[in-house]
Amino acid sequence: MSIIQVASHLTYQVESPASFIFTVAVAQNTHQTIQQEQLIINPLVPYEGFMSGEEANRSIRFALQPCTLTLDYTATIELSHTIHQPPQLDEVAYLNLPTDALPYLNPSRYCESDRLGRFAYKTFGHLPMGYARVSAICDWVFNHIDYVSGSTHGSSSACDVLVQGMGVCRDFAHLSIALCRALGIPARYVAGYAPELQPPDFHGFFEAYLGGNWYLFDATKLAPVGGFVRISAGRDAADTAFANIVGNVSLEKMEVSALSLTQNAPSPNSAVSTA
Amino acid sequence: MSIIQVASHLTYQVESPASFIFTVAVAQNTHQTIQQEQLIINPLVPYEGFMSGEEANRSIRFALQPCTLTLDYTATIELSHTIHQPPQLDEVAYLNLPTDALPYLNPSRYCESDRLGRFAYKTFGHLPMGYARVSAICDWVFNHIDYVSGSTHGSSSACDVLVQGMGVCRDFAHLSIALCRALGIPARYVAGYAPELQPPDFHGFFEAYLGGNWYLFDATKLAPVGGFVRISAGRDAADTAFANIVGNVSLEKMEVSALSLTQNAPSPNSAVSTA
Amino acid sequence: MSIIQVASHLTYQVESPASFIFTVAVAQNTHQTIQQEQLIINPLVPYEGFMSGEEANRSIRFALQPCTLTLDYTATIELSHTIHQPPQLDEVAYLNLPTDALPYLNPSRYCESDRLGRFAYKTFGHLPMGYARVSAICDWVFNHIDYVSGSTHGSSSACDVLVQGMGVCRDFAHLSIALCRALGIPARYVAGYAPELQPPDFHGFFEAYLGGNWYLFDATKLAPVGGFVRISAGRDAADTAFANIVGNVSLEKMEVSALSLTQNAPSPNSAVSTA
Amino acid sequence: MSIIQVASHLTYQVESPASFIFTVAVAQNTHQTIQQEQLIINPLVPYEGFMSGEEANRSIRFALQPCTLTLDYTATIELSHTIHQPPQLDEVAYLNLPTDALPYLNPSRYCESDRLGRFAYKTFGHLPMGYARVSAICDWVFNHIDYVSGSTHGSSSACDVLVQGMGVCRDFAHLSIALCRALGIPARYVAGYAPELQPPDFHGFFEAYLGGNWYLFDATKLAPVGGFVRISAGRDAADTAFANIVGNVSLEKMEVSALSLTQNAPSPNSAVSTA
Repeated sequence: MSIIQVASHLTYQVESPASFIFTVAVAQNTHQTIQQEQLIINPLVPYEGFMSGEEANRSIRFALQPCTLTLDYTATIELSHTIHQPPQLDEVAYLNLPTDALPYLNPSRYCESDRLGRFAYKTFGHLPMGYARVSAICDWVFNHIDYVSGSTHGSSSACDVLVQGMGVCRDFAHLSIALCRALGIPARYVAGYAPELQPPDFHGFFEAYLGGNWYLFDATKLAPVGGFVRISAGRDAADTAFANIVGNVSLEKMEVSALSLTQNAPSPNSAVSTA
Repeated sequence: MSIIQVASHLTYQVESPASFIFTVAVAQNTHQTIQQEQLIINPLVPYEGFMSGEEANRSIRFALQPCTLTLDYTATIELSHTIHQPPQLDEVAYLNLPTDALPYLNPSRYCESDRLGRFAYKTFGHLPMGYARVSAICDWVFNHIDYVSGSTHGSSSACDVLVQGMGVCRDFAHLSIALCRALGIPARYVAGYAPELQPPDFHGFFEAYLGGNWYLFDATKLAPVGGFVRISAGRDAADTAFANIVGNVSLEKMEVSALSLTQNAPSPNSAVSTA
Repeated sequence: MSIIQVASHLTYQVESPASFIFTVAVAQNTHQTIQQEQLIINPLVPYEGFMSGEEANRSIRFALQPCTLTLDYTATIELSHTIHQPPQLDEVAYLNLPTDALPYLNPSRYCESDRLGRFAYKTFGHLPMGYARVSAICDWVFNHIDYVSGSTHGSSSACDVLVQGMGVCRDFAHLSIALCRALGIPARYVAGYAPELQPPDFHGFFEAYLGGNWYLFDATKLAPVGGFVRISAGRDAADTAFANIVGNVSLEKMEVSALSLTQNAPSPNSAVSTA
Repeated sequence: MSIIQVASHLTYQVESPASFIFTVAVAQNTHQTIQQEQLIINPLVPYEGFMSGEEANRSIRFALQPCTLTLDYTATIELSHTIHQPPQLDEVAYLNLPTDALPYLNPSRYCESDRLGRFAYKTFGHLPMGYARVSAICDWVFNHIDYVSGSTHGSSSACDVLVQGMGVCRDFAHLSIALCRALGIPARYVAGYAPELQPPDFHGFFEAYLGGNWYLFDATKLAPVGGFVRISAGRDAADTAFANIVGNVSLEKMEVSALSLTQNAPSPNSAVSTA
């Protein structure tokens, strides 16, 4: 069990009448208990809260006239993961997968698993199946892709990242996801808060479906997955944007933080599930 | 109201132990009443029926040892569309969209709407919004893309099709969907049976969300949308494959047919909803 | 006849032993007479001058130890174009093309004419052939692509630009070239100095082979082609970089200028050849 | 020294007036002596012979009215390679490269070396430079890419092949070339005849510039490079098509053969130069 404090502070200049959907609040499930949570939007504006996407991410939406918008979100979360130690989790046969995991085998905008089948089998096909194979994918991505800020852009996909050999957290996740799916392992993108991440920012990582549950992985190895706090999940980053905005709006400032108030993070080689 | 008879007959050579998911049965909803339906799988094999994907498509799955597999599906459907005539349907403001339509604004594997925003606005931004604009997209795709059998492959996307100027029905749908989403109009892929399609085959078309409902469109103009029978819907063709197979299996024969038993198809310029 | 003064001043921080090839000097041919020319490299370093590429561009190369490098190039050029007014230049039949123009029909890194054949014929196939058709390509590119600084990067190609609807001068040239080649018109990239260009910079434009000669075109319409001073030509921007550097070197400052000392630029609708 | 007999027999159905450029004749240089050569075109048609491209490939061109065209080329060639055994050839420093090798460092249509720099350095940057490194690239391509007939198409490039993990001879060459260029090693595409190739066909391989000369490599390992007979060379397959045709023409039959009349092929691990 860990206690994590997270916060995001966003400032926008709204130049025209605009509509906003924000997805910055942490997910609520059996693994993530929200002890305290506060959202302050300035100017005061009525907003609608709703569940977005296949994974019921917690979103809000509202409209504004031109103004300066600030959104301040803070929360304290109690994490109670399912932890397997040492991890011995099998891949699940195609016919035994829960049917709501099946869409996470399909290629998506940033995870072109349909193109990577042969590459995936040549590189990982001979490895022991299960948790070890997904870990091997993470190691391979970590070793072959350089983390370079600004090296990719909004339309960069897993195949781009494989070719160019660099990317940021979302790219590491996309490539790992695509390789998992290409091998028949359901995998999905998770956006969240990550204590110890330097520099602090929203983080992107992924989950693979193994042994009857979704387990967290992060090929960037920038922070321990045991401290990750889930915001949203989806097929790839297209489904988990922290902000979707229609209108002439510019981001002026963004501060994200996550702090672990406890010291008992799971050891690095344990399997962590928060789904 | 129309009565449509559909059928698909598939023969596979199964060379290794294999797993199958088929999605060939017609969807059941208030617009599609199934009067009669029969599915014969040979060899006899127990199968699981389930709802797949965000749109609850009717799928089955089963496993087989090496053999010759035949799947014969026949159904008689009563279509009772919502028809607007003449169509005057507005686009729905971002903040008023039903939240389950929002994922259909996101880019997907074969519909890279994130890249096409500027192209879409330059080409269609000045047009009257609503049904007319989606129709204009269909006309543009019809006029700029040649229908050429075999001109694309499984990894061809909307951007590929735009560049290459040719494709088949799924490509016409993908490009149209990507352009709609780029303009802020939710759009999704629909697979189905289409009477009068020559040569007969499964057909791919799309729906756009307008005026509070999903309306059918087909940029190929190969058959009247009023007779389309929905099988499945999803973000793009990745979500609506009629067969997903794991194993060493080859398709030997495929016959698809759709026949309208009535003559009262909606006129070509009416808006048809079957969602 | 025009007199043009051009200059480029480059400052680099050389962090490791490095090798340099610069191609900033204006081309010398019957249309471009160099009245005065000066190249100052600091620190003093022996360099080799050589003719690079199929079009014999004037390049220099040298090596340096870590230092601050400044390169100052100035020249005064007398332009004496071949001008056709009004332009009535035919396309040249495939069998009559000079054989050294044939490589400029091939697709190149940034000009994937092999993919654009159908698009080109659908959009420009019905137009009168010759100068008017290349002009129509320029007009189309000008109208469909937005000039947006920083919107593309070093690996953006003609197809990317077509899809994304924006680019900078090199992208406008690449797309125009690709469309010309797709129609059977040899076209090549030209880098040069352009008076009246705002902000001043190296400029990228192109030439098409028509009526027995190479004629200048610029789909950006940012400056009159009659004042363009050629530096180098090649298949695309890959062949005409003003600097190729091996080593750890960063560009600190770049100033480019071009000034027309005369007022008799050709009228906008005349065909200009400087090849 | 080897004696090789080569032949190509092409049959086309010419449906409209059409223009043809063929490049099937073997190159003539100090390494390839043509002992006997015959070209029969039916119907009899006057043709122009010319040197095409940067490497002066031997091409012919002519025009025809609708007819059945057959082209029969046969030649007997004496190969006298420069062979290094064992090969110890260094890479040549950027500043010491012959200037006509420099264009073969640039990215080209099918060899996007500009995108592959990081991948190339991560995979091959630590290896001993020179012949061994290019051999390591060939081994890597051989081991990571499957040779699958029909797996790629005319617009498939090195990056596509890297992602998809399969290709044919031209794709193996393109990827190898792109990786060489990304490492600063000039590399170019060579089309030719290859004894022992099964099934017989035109073959695509490549040359890298090492130790002052161009050396042959073939990542497919389908036939010994010592027997390769050069037809043409260029930046990539775009420059070395055996046929370029304008008009409505279909290839009806193609037979290519190459037979070594001698037995003294160089051993597999020797460096062979025929440039």
